[in-house]
Amino acid sequence: MSPARGFPPSEYRARVARAQAMMADVGLDALLLTTEPGVRYFTGFLTRFWESPTRPWFLVVPARGDPVAVIPEIGTHLMRQCWLKDIRSFASPEPGTRGLALLRDTLNELVPGGRIGVPSGPESHLRLPLADWAQLQPGLTFSGDAEILARLRQIKSPAEVAKITEACAIAGRAFDRLPEIAAPGVPLEQVFRRFQMLCLDEGADWVPYLAGATGPGGYGDVISPATPAPLRHGDVLMLDTGLTHDGYFCDFNRNFALGPPDAQLQAAHARLIEATRAGFDIARPAHTHADLYRAMSRVLTPGQGAPGRLGHGLGMELTEGPSLVAWEETPLSPGMVLTLEPVLPLPSGALLVHEENILITEGAPQWLSPPAAPEIPVLGA
Amino acid sequence: MSPARGFPPSEYRARVARAQAMMADVGLDALLLTTEPGVRYFTGFLTRFWESPTRPWFLVVPARGDPVAVIPEIGTHLMRQCWLKDIRSFASPEPGTRGLALLRDTLNELVPGGRIGVPSGPESHLRLPLADWAQLQPGLTFSGDAEILARLRQIKSPAEVAKITEACAIAGRAFDRLPEIAAPGVPLEQVFRRFQMLCLDEGADWVPYLAGATGPGGYGDVISPATPAPLRHGDVLMLDTGLTHDGYFCDFNRNFALGPPDAQLQAAHARLIEATRAGFDIARPAHTHADLYRAMSRVLTPGQGAPGRLGHGLGMELTEGPSLVAWEETPLSPGMVLTLEPVLPLPSGALLVHEENILITEGAPQWLSPPAAPEIPVLGA
Repeated sequence: MSPARGFPPSEYRARVARAQAMMADVGLDALLLTTEPGVRYFTGFLTRFWESPTRPWFLVVPARGDPVAVIPEIGTHLMRQCWLKDIRSFASPEPGTRGLALLRDTLNELVPGGRIGVPSGPESHLRLPLADWAQLQPGLTFSGDAEILARLRQIKSPAEVAKITEACAIAGRAFDRLPEIAAPGVPLEQVFRRFQMLCLDEGADWVPYLAGATGPGGYGDVISPATPAPLRHGDVLMLDTGLTHDGYFCDFNRNFALGPPDAQLQAAHARLIEATRAGFDIARPAHTHADLYRAMSRVLTPGQGAPGRLGHGLGMELTEGPSLVAWEETPLSPGMVLTLEPVLPLPSGALLVHEENILITEGAPQWLSPPAAPEIPVLGA
Repeated sequence: MSPARGFPPSEYRARVARAQAMMADVGLDALLLTTEPGVRYFTGFLTRFWESPTRPWFLVVPARGDPVAVIPEIGTHLMRQCWLKDIRSFASPEPGTRGLALLRDTLNELVPGGRIGVPSGPESHLRLPLADWAQLQPGLTFSGDAEILARLRQIKSPAEVAKITEACAIAGRAFDRLPEIAAPGVPLEQVFRRFQMLCLDEGADWVPYLAGATGPGGYGDVISPATPAPLRHGDVLMLDTGLTHDGYFCDFNRNFALGPPDAQLQAAHARLIEATRAGFDIARPAHTHADLYRAMSRVLTPGQGAPGRLGHGLGMELTEGPSLVAWEETPLSPGMVLTLEPVLPLPSGALLVHEENILITEGAPQWLSPPAAPEIPVLGA
């Protein structure tokens, strides 16, 4: 049984209250949000229409009172189904800048002379043409948002965790069915296509992310699209999916041996699982993100740091902060959802990568993805 | 038979040469690109990894010489498979700003003291945290890109048109199979899921966009996600998909009557097709985008302007400029790919919307989507 769609208004009110407390701490009078996760976090506005770059969307979260949406007319019907009461709209596209003018008027009305925080730090961007941003400056005072949006999103509510859990379960069932569609001789691009179909068949709303790779014992990267090349007996196949359920992602992968694995591949896979478990075992609030990196790194590349990051936050986006890297001393907190993503560099120069999703609690962590066994699964044995 | 994947280096060299000619015209010494379509347009770098907001990506196109990629290490393996020779990489994420420093060094080396154009106009954004953008300013001279990237992308090469044509054909076959999955009583969210599976089964690489709606005679908007509500006998169902083939989109929709349509729905659908054909009939280089808007508007809402835009460009993104609106006097040019998207406001306050994709040529336009007949198709008759 899937969790109920959406969230009750109380969830959004709690988010706004937390944001407002943080705004008070840092002396911000409002937040201005322009991106999909920013707008959706406080409103529940869920649409794939962000795929169109044509129109700007604005949400103002004042330091007191409810958020105000300043959006293109095409979005008002859907936004009215959200909990927000104050929805202001403008024609878009349009030859002039009435949208910017409406935003300016709204800011001047809600927080006259106020300091307006705009997400400006890692993993953020402004979804507005730079020319429009320049035009918006005179008479308004913008600054960074002191990472308020990112910090809020790091801690997931139980209702958010339920959605991520559902996304993980869907992907887990799709991976279990991989033998239906993948075997030596099948072109990788067909595997990509059929795997997305399995994800949808198992209940995904959407499959925004799929990467994969194949090669002897490992692969050159983990971000490539499919090729028409057929899978080869003796190679390893990796698929990594970020599918969504009700706007929340999973992000984990599986490696498969194409035919019986040799001892090197078996050992490499077992090492990845050992590293994952080393991270999992200490994934409690007493530790930091760097502790997890170090615990995994010690298994992967003893005596030296592992390359890149070994995991990251996960939720409304495929990847969120903080990263599992050596310098990230942010402590783990209950409600954080993380990926554990050990990367094993191989003597050949190739990589083998594994990924699982976990929830940090007050005590022991919880697996959200079904954790893989040390033995690499075999396709077409 | 699908067109070959990717493009030959000559395609990218021609794009760079056109960009450089335009840079010379406006006195720009380089372009700095940070978004997926900007980087891909000049390199062919195709990955879904842009779904992760963690890392910045840069491409510098100097006024003379080949482009230079300044990218995170995780992308070098894939970028080396593209035609670019000069690929510079940085560790990311990282605690400092070595990526920004590498970009700065690259710009200072390639175009010392030069004027660097950054896309800043409609439908653009900067994919870089604002704090990083501020840090990049001292000692470098940035300006808008004089719409060079947008103007280049408006005119598709024959190889680009072949990919869009293939995407349209795939979606056309998926729409033809809709009776397999949709009928009165089926939940809309199941239709969404199964329709994406049909798109993949027919050959889509990915289904980034799907919207749809249902209601009596029309619907409230065209951007909503699915709901669990079952389709109702007597209602109309609209599905609108933007699927991709090799990184190029289609964007068209279909309306279906759920059971025999009443006279109003039949007439409304026929009017949409009439409006589409009115646009199609004059879609030649002698006319402007506004001419198409007016021709369609006259059929839809005689004596007054139609609400919103009635179409747009299409290609590497679901929606591109220019828009079909009353004030867009840009002339049509051979190689433009457009959507014709008439919107019919109904007396009930609801809408009925149709959409097709066409190619502008030297002479008569070509349908890229299989044009719908005036008679609305019926599901579950």
